[in-house]
Amino acid sequence: MIKVGINGYGTIGKRVADAVSLQDDMEVAGVTKTKPDFEAENAIKKGYRLYSAISERLEVFEEKGLKVEGTLGELLERCDVVVDCSPGGYGAKNKEIYERYGVKAVFQGGEKKNIAPVSFVASCNYEKAVGADFIRVVSCNTTGMSRLIRIVTSLVDIGRVRATVVRRAVDPKDDRKGPINAITPNPVSLPSHHGVDVQSVMPDVDIVTTAVKVPTTLMHLHSMNFDLKGDMREQDLIEVLRNDARMMLIHSEDGFTSTARIIEYAREVRDRGDIWENCVWEDSISVYGGELYLFQAIHQEAIVVPENVDAIRALMGFEDGDASIEKTNRTLGL
Amino acid sequence: MIKVGINGYGTIGKRVADAVSLQDDMEVAGVTKTKPDFEAENAIKKGYRLYSAISERLEVFEEKGLKVEGTLGELLERCDVVVDCSPGGYGAKNKEIYERYGVKAVFQGGEKKNIAPVSFVASCNYEKAVGADFIRVVSCNTTGMSRLIRIVTSLVDIGRVRATVVRRAVDPKDDRKGPINAITPNPVSLPSHHGVDVQSVMPDVDIVTTAVKVPTTLMHLHSMNFDLKGDMREQDLIEVLRNDARMMLIHSEDGFTSTARIIEYAREVRDRGDIWENCVWEDSISVYGGELYLFQAIHQEAIVVPENVDAIRALMGFEDGDASIEKTNRTLGL
Amino acid sequence: MIKVGINGYGTIGKRVADAVSLQDDMEVAGVTKTKPDFEAENAIKKGYRLYSAISERLEVFEEKGLKVEGTLGELLERCDVVVDCSPGGYGAKNKEIYERYGVKAVFQGGEKKNIAPVSFVASCNYEKAVGADFIRVVSCNTTGMSRLIRIVTSLVDIGRVRATVVRRAVDPKDDRKGPINAITPNPVSLPSHHGVDVQSVMPDVDIVTTAVKVPTTLMHLHSMNFDLKGDMREQDLIEVLRNDARMMLIHSEDGFTSTARIIEYAREVRDRGDIWENCVWEDSISVYGGELYLFQAIHQEAIVVPENVDAIRALMGFEDGDASIEKTNRTLGL
Amino acid sequence: MIKVGINGYGTIGKRVADAVSLQDDMEVAGVTKTKPDFEAENAIKKGYRLYSAISERLEVFEEKGLKVEGTLGELLERCDVVVDCSPGGYGAKNKEIYERYGVKAVFQGGEKKNIAPVSFVASCNYEKAVGADFIRVVSCNTTGMSRLIRIVTSLVDIGRVRATVVRRAVDPKDDRKGPINAITPNPVSLPSHHGVDVQSVMPDVDIVTTAVKVPTTLMHLHSMNFDLKGDMREQDLIEVLRNDARMMLIHSEDGFTSTARIIEYAREVRDRGDIWENCVWEDSISVYGGELYLFQAIHQEAIVVPENVDAIRALMGFEDGDASIEKTNRTLGL
Repeated sequence: MIKVGINGYGTIGKRVADAVSLQDDMEVAGVTKTKPDFEAENAIKKGYRLYSAISERLEVFEEKGLKVEGTLGELLERCDVVVDCSPGGYGAKNKEIYERYGVKAVFQGGEKKNIAPVSFVASCNYEKAVGADFIRVVSCNTTGMSRLIRIVTSLVDIGRVRATVVRRAVDPKDDRKGPINAITPNPVSLPSHHGVDVQSVMPDVDIVTTAVKVPTTLMHLHSMNFDLKGDMREQDLIEVLRNDARMMLIHSEDGFTSTARIIEYAREVRDRGDIWENCVWEDSISVYGGELYLFQAIHQEAIVVPENVDAIRALMGFEDGDASIEKTNRTLGL
Repeated sequence: MIKVGINGYGTIGKRVADAVSLQDDMEVAGVTKTKPDFEAENAIKKGYRLYSAISERLEVFEEKGLKVEGTLGELLERCDVVVDCSPGGYGAKNKEIYERYGVKAVFQGGEKKNIAPVSFVASCNYEKAVGADFIRVVSCNTTGMSRLIRIVTSLVDIGRVRATVVRRAVDPKDDRKGPINAITPNPVSLPSHHGVDVQSVMPDVDIVTTAVKVPTTLMHLHSMNFDLKGDMREQDLIEVLRNDARMMLIHSEDGFTSTARIIEYAREVRDRGDIWENCVWEDSISVYGGELYLFQAIHQEAIVVPENVDAIRALMGFEDGDASIEKTNRTLGL
Repeated sequence: MIKVGINGYGTIGKRVADAVSLQDDMEVAGVTKTKPDFEAENAIKKGYRLYSAISERLEVFEEKGLKVEGTLGELLERCDVVVDCSPGGYGAKNKEIYERYGVKAVFQGGEKKNIAPVSFVASCNYEKAVGADFIRVVSCNTTGMSRLIRIVTSLVDIGRVRATVVRRAVDPKDDRKGPINAITPNPVSLPSHHGVDVQSVMPDVDIVTTAVKVPTTLMHLHSMNFDLKGDMREQDLIEVLRNDARMMLIHSEDGFTSTARIIEYAREVRDRGDIWENCVWEDSISVYGGELYLFQAIHQEAIVVPENVDAIRALMGFEDGDASIEKTNRTLGL
Repeated sequence: MIKVGINGYGTIGKRVADAVSLQDDMEVAGVTKTKPDFEAENAIKKGYRLYSAISERLEVFEEKGLKVEGTLGELLERCDVVVDCSPGGYGAKNKEIYERYGVKAVFQGGEKKNIAPVSFVASCNYEKAVGADFIRVVSCNTTGMSRLIRIVTSLVDIGRVRATVVRRAVDPKDDRKGPINAITPNPVSLPSHHGVDVQSVMPDVDIVTTAVKVPTTLMHLHSMNFDLKGDMREQDLIEVLRNDARMMLIHSEDGFTSTARIIEYAREVRDRGDIWENCVWEDSISVYGGELYLFQAIHQEAIVVPENVDAIRALMGFEDGDASIEKTNRTLGL
């Protein structure tokens, strides 16, 4: 059993913890929190051992009556792997601690590319990550684009990929940040970093991206465009997408008219309303003038969760990427 | 076993269906849908027998490959009770059908008061509904205010109740209606109908309400104010609220700073992120100048679900309201 | 003096009325409204002769104490040209009336292409519209894209143009429609109609567009991409844009970080905060891998106003497009 | 001529500058900005002398090619009065500077009550401010409530006033703060500070307030409630409101269905779409059960502008409050 610590039981951390719990080859050694809020209470209710991410705050948890097992250091002593789910940018500092304790680590896409030798998307480059000490699971947008590009390239050679990323501004739980009524180029200077980040996973892809931020909390949406170097029938792509467990084909005729309707669907069939798949609108898939166009929606809270599970296996030297992906998919119910 | 039909498997209907399924004295005979969208597919996945709410559309379901058992009439022949969860205003026409089939019915708060002899909130007037043929479970806002008023009056005599209802404009799945950037008095002419609707449950309460609609989808918020005719300590109210299973005390220090944070909490611990309780901010409770002030948030998608279950029992002649409430609470996990 | 009637004094109509008033070769003969609301009152305050768009409602205006000169027919008798600013889709029916009265008409982009022999953007095809009986000024998004494409093609030959249109969902005054919290592909099936509509103005342009609707009211945003068949320096494009009165170069360093900030700027320097120009982010302009990328924002309430003025001149046989454009620009203060 | 400096040419500052310019007894000596953004450029376009609020940043303006006259100190040397429109909380530090230069100052409602001996609303307590060295014009919400309370008390004796303040979360130009999809009690603990702040103007008023923040940018909305100690006919209040220049009666039948529609109206008839008046819904005014209920909307960007002009006169010893109010109203076009 791989002992997995979760450093940061927030939006990503709590999802990774639950996904790890479902695996038969790994277990959650403990999770950390910086403050004793309702998320900390939920962690304990779910049976996770709680640790204080910040040593000095141990007593703050006790004052609230929340049982804490110790500090981050004590958790690391009990772990084979730590999944760093701290806020973006904290990973670099944390890495020094992980190294000191000799614990392998999975970082998230909010960290810089050079924090780990491998920027990871399971279906794209699992083999490169096997046995590494550190892996960076790329961001939700990069994961979604990388998965899709790999699938398209399995059918046809492609030239340039262009994507406009329409970003939900904040996660649903964020009640501080906006904007309330604006569209924000993010960034203004083009191209945006998303394309470069895809290349950290698949260096040979020619991709250019632009991104804007809009006042919604539910999902990102990608308007995707591929130069095709050969023939590909729309129906062939639909077939491949239908058979890929990390892809969900949706159709506006079934009521999937917006990101809100996708989330409504997911609330019925998934804990937390999570969607680990790319949601591709089947009726948007269009080969037109030698190019492929389509829309996909990406659930920023959930899509990297299966990649984190696979990354843990890769770190621990499990060599068969397809087997890991299949196992993760099966346990999550994909 | 009480056989319960659900006419309208939408926002309320799907929740009532699941709640009925959890009871040991009732079962879901079937549910109706008007079109074969993803909600219809989810109904079948969950094992509910699906009926076409509109006879003429039977074949539309078949074209989509969704198995339909028959039409509304055929469902009614198999039911003891139907819970009408059709869109507001359709209940009156449906009532004629239910009467023709001799089936008792629970209506929702979107219907006019006179559709049923009893406007119902379980903790307020269960006994009046026992054995009735028709019950109207009042709207989410009215249910939330009625429950709270009953609790306050159990502690102290009250005079006038005043409430400002800050309404979420639409449910999360609605991607058509707004407003996007406005506050709308709703209605402009005062007082609003909410107070009158509370009086349909508790005729002796002196209550005046105002309401505005705001661009959010998650929960309603009530700013409540009670004239107190006697002494009541804040701590006493907190105690009673803590011990009432249909009340949830929340505190901003635990991270409950907004409706968004409440829903984030619920996503962790409840299917669909549902909250059947009034969410009362403990740190808002204030007795000031002979009056009680507090904030409560009401999850419009879920709060009437337990009342619907209790209403079914009342219709069928089950006399012990406290026992029904306790059973409903226990099965839902309140 | 060209006598201009405005049929529909709403979002577009009131702006066209004011712009016509500023011209020395035309005057507003009157404006129509369907109901006596504050917009009707403002029309009278501004000195416009008010007519009832619907004959039967004449007395509704009188009951409100608003002076109405007559009905649409009576206005048409006094006009050389009518600018049809009725809601999208009404134009076709109105056209029969205009023909009956022998009045030339300008329609808006909400009408079908075939309502008029010319789909019009002043800088692109003024000459084709000279002397026509009917002109269709294309929609705000199409106008914005057409103007920009013409400018780029004045510098370099282009191949395919690709655009993702991020649409504000409704105008600021709309307090009914949404969505509140969703991104909506609009339409889902690709490509979207916007590209085809650009081709109604410039048939030889190879353009493919996609569009999504987002919860904001202020401006549309276009993520634009051009295949370049030759060399073009970013600085050259910037120079041309700076010298075109219907283009406004903005820079994020000056505080133009979003559509909200552009509108804040316009509130200071323009009536109604109107922006008749394409707002192109200078720091987004990027030639990359043989392609041009940039962001532009389009003020949907105002951008077609100068085109409407020019269209009136073209209808009346004024032949010099450049002179018309220059005159319109000067009078509006561009 | 009173020489007025504006320290902080932002949302409030730029409006006060324009209002001061319209007076025949005062003039704008100059305005300050902290950075050379488009607001600074607009200030120069409008003919205001621009100063750098922060000495060290003088050259940043020059680099941008914006002509700066000097620093705040140099502006103060040229002023009789400074209107402090710096961000909330900065006023206290600035006060020391103003004292050092011997310049009288008007502060805004974001400052603590004790920054000045008088918390000011012109119609409520002008006389107390005459000849003071420092005045604090209270916040938009407090100004709106105070004006209304004074009017009601001119008709009838009142007991407790209760208000629920539904706050727009941010100003239209703010593209950073939210929330996007939440209702936030603000503050959670009751009563809110707004009532106490009204008492800083009118100490004898018994008022209790609660407040929530909602995702909109346009206006605040107040649900107001007054205990009446005597008779007052709704029509009498309507008459008084109609005759008070700082009140605007609106009616939903004229299209005023929301804050969005009010702003749409103002965009037609006012620079920047500003509304200096309380907007009271005539059809909301209701005397019910011995209490008065009504809705009013408050334009947070503009409502304190006339009070700032009056405050300048009071500071300079102009004794006739009614005359000042009348002059301010007339020049602004109220």
